[in-house]
Amino acid sequence: MDLREVVAAKRDGGTLTEDQIRSLVLAYAGGEADDGLAAAFLMACFIRGLDPAETLFLTRAMVESGSTLPLEGVTRPKVDKHSTGGVADGVTLVFAPLAASLGLAVAKLSGRGLGHTGGTLDKLEAIPGLRTELSMAEMERQVEEVGCAVAAQTKDVVPADGALYALRDATATVPSVPLIAASVMSKKLAVGSDLILLDVKAGSGAFMKTPEDARALAEACAALGEAWGRRVRAAVTDMSQPLGDAVGNALDVAEAVEVLRGKRSGRLTDLAVIFAAAALADLTEAREEEAAARARAALEDGTAARAFGRMVEAQGGDPRVVDDPWAVLPRAPVVRPIEAPRSGWVGGMDAEAMGRAGVALGAGRPRKGDLIDPAVGLVVTAEVGDRVEAGAPIGEVHARNEDAARSAGAAVLAAIEVGEETVGAPPLVYGWHGS
Amino acid sequence: MDLREVVAAKRDGGTLTEDQIRSLVLAYAGGEADDGLAAAFLMACFIRGLDPAETLFLTRAMVESGSTLPLEGVTRPKVDKHSTGGVADGVTLVFAPLAASLGLAVAKLSGRGLGHTGGTLDKLEAIPGLRTELSMAEMERQVEEVGCAVAAQTKDVVPADGALYALRDATATVPSVPLIAASVMSKKLAVGSDLILLDVKAGSGAFMKTPEDARALAEACAALGEAWGRRVRAAVTDMSQPLGDAVGNALDVAEAVEVLRGKRSGRLTDLAVIFAAAALADLTEAREEEAAARARAALEDGTAARAFGRMVEAQGGDPRVVDDPWAVLPRAPVVRPIEAPRSGWVGGMDAEAMGRAGVALGAGRPRKGDLIDPAVGLVVTAEVGDRVEAGAPIGEVHARNEDAARSAGAAVLAAIEVGEETVGAPPLVYGWHGS
Repeated sequence: MDLREVVAAKRDGGTLTEDQIRSLVLAYAGGEADDGLAAAFLMACFIRGLDPAETLFLTRAMVESGSTLPLEGVTRPKVDKHSTGGVADGVTLVFAPLAASLGLAVAKLSGRGLGHTGGTLDKLEAIPGLRTELSMAEMERQVEEVGCAVAAQTKDVVPADGALYALRDATATVPSVPLIAASVMSKKLAVGSDLILLDVKAGSGAFMKTPEDARALAEACAALGEAWGRRVRAAVTDMSQPLGDAVGNALDVAEAVEVLRGKRSGRLTDLAVIFAAAALADLTEAREEEAAARARAALEDGTAARAFGRMVEAQGGDPRVVDDPWAVLPRAPVVRPIEAPRSGWVGGMDAEAMGRAGVALGAGRPRKGDLIDPAVGLVVTAEVGDRVEAGAPIGEVHARNEDAARSAGAAVLAAIEVGEETVGAPPLVYGWHGS
Repeated sequence: MDLREVVAAKRDGGTLTEDQIRSLVLAYAGGEADDGLAAAFLMACFIRGLDPAETLFLTRAMVESGSTLPLEGVTRPKVDKHSTGGVADGVTLVFAPLAASLGLAVAKLSGRGLGHTGGTLDKLEAIPGLRTELSMAEMERQVEEVGCAVAAQTKDVVPADGALYALRDATATVPSVPLIAASVMSKKLAVGSDLILLDVKAGSGAFMKTPEDARALAEACAALGEAWGRRVRAAVTDMSQPLGDAVGNALDVAEAVEVLRGKRSGRLTDLAVIFAAAALADLTEAREEEAAARARAALEDGTAARAFGRMVEAQGGDPRVVDDPWAVLPRAPVVRPIEAPRSGWVGGMDAEAMGRAGVALGAGRPRKGDLIDPAVGLVVTAEVGDRVEAGAPIGEVHARNEDAARSAGAAVLAAIEVGEETVGAPPLVYGWHGS
């Protein structure tokens, strides 16, 4: 097959066959097709679109490019959960042990942070000693014994996604619903699970800036999973402001521990409970309200926190992080308060700008492969709809030095609108899609 | 400038600025932007199109990528001529010395054949000793002294075109009118001339299969040249059948010599005279009919042939090729007649198939960089509209061996339709565009 004819067919608005898409993807993943051909293909797909069948073919070829993790040795009901990426989005850190404490199994392959969004692996690795490079056998054993594991995406699973994503990033072909759906779902479909939960973020801190765009992606992902024969439930959730308070790594872990110990309410807690309850209701005979009550109880009675401790210990980390996080986690040398510049109502927060302020402190990586500083970051307690008073503390900057603290503090203040009029808080969940 | 934003703007159907296009093209030509980014850009341009201003910006950036050949030392009126490529298209071999014999100057940078179309350089190099690698200074001196020179496109002139064309060929982004126009015209605009003549071929043996497509390209090229401030006249001419009789290299030179010596009439002669007359009428005070008469006279009185001999000699070739071509040119060991399979009227010829038969004999290069055999090729004397009788000779195959001769003969017969009804010959020139 002349792969240029495949590219020409999509260029001219045609519909591709499975054989055509598979040949192109496997040739690129195998190094037989070069960046130029693949980039031309991606741009043609971006502009002309891919229909649901083509998106399925693309996803299947990507999964076929590597090995899979069926997790057949895990006896509990298995749930996988994925977020499209946001700011102060520590849901996975809470969800995985919470679901485990409810009798479910969570085997999560996770990525590192890139750009203004944080990554679960970076956060977990703020715990001294914790390993995220688990073999597939280690992963499976840990999930069966502890109920959850969070490990680094390996190069063996869906290698085509890593190659295509890097090329899309370099060629302005990222924001395409079918290409994003294939990327997200290929990694979920390569891992055995009874239910896939997707958290598709919408708002200034997310990739999809509007709930409508996020819904299109949620529906595409759900359709793809169902065409594959898997259960998928996709929620579109708000990312018009940071989800939790912490933007960083050690700071996120400390916040997650507070949530897991039932010592904290708010949007992060609510969303973790919503996902855990959705999984429990879907995979067991529990009704929704009962499932939510059991999830809240697991946070309050310490079982979720204990599951987190077991996961941390199984992965080589110091389990005292559950009882006394700051005895274990690295602290930044400079901690400065952020004060409200004037009295009024918080009318909006630019979550992406706050994520970028965290990156500038060293908490994230501007470019793939950059090193991060686990100790630094931001804590912002104010939320949209809150009343603040001039000079009152609304957060903290944790920085390497005074200069960095000052710039980050200024960036946070610039990202928060304080106005004369009260503003309603945005909804946490816009809607659910799928099975 | 983040070049990905340039690509994204075109991807989304936007109109690019000169600065954006220039940055991208010069970065690619300079090796700072990679194939992936450039291929994504080309595909976005292919699908979304480029308006006349963007096409001009692209062309200007391509010219800026290298050095130019202003030919300021040439005192005669300067005409450049370019064909978009056809089968048995030896017009340049005739046109350059014919125009020189009429007092004009022709400095022609030419390419090698690729695919089913032949290249003027390959044809000229069939003359033993002839060099086409001329320096710019040699080129200018020869044009001033002899009136014409045909030399290889150097890497210094429009290097971006070589790089972009190779990438387009590899990424299914060739057949786009603005991209072709920029490629063709950048090489013409980099060379000083008072008039640019374009021969845009239309038909089965050409890149543009219909006169309408060819007209769009002719108009785009003419508009581009005029926006640059240059005179351009572009003819759409017929390539529904091979233009001359010879498909090869030595065979083409022998045919061109016959035309230059006034010993041959037909479509190749007519088109060479039409272009020479157009140049003479445009650049001097001669009226069209007078110009055509002078061109025909230069073929008949030997002045055109003598100009060819001087050009061959100046470039190191054996000038006896003008008086006795086959004393000088290489001959193939096997020459076999092609005979009409039945009596009837020639209703159509698949010029591309005949070009491919020539390539299969070794006269052309399937891939860039392949070696060619100057001696082999085809001669087909039958034309659309001719009456042929079963068994009568309609051409010859010149081959390395019997097997090759047999296959080529069969391919030629398969490419010629012989029917019961008379068919009118297609027009030679469909129309003129530009100044």
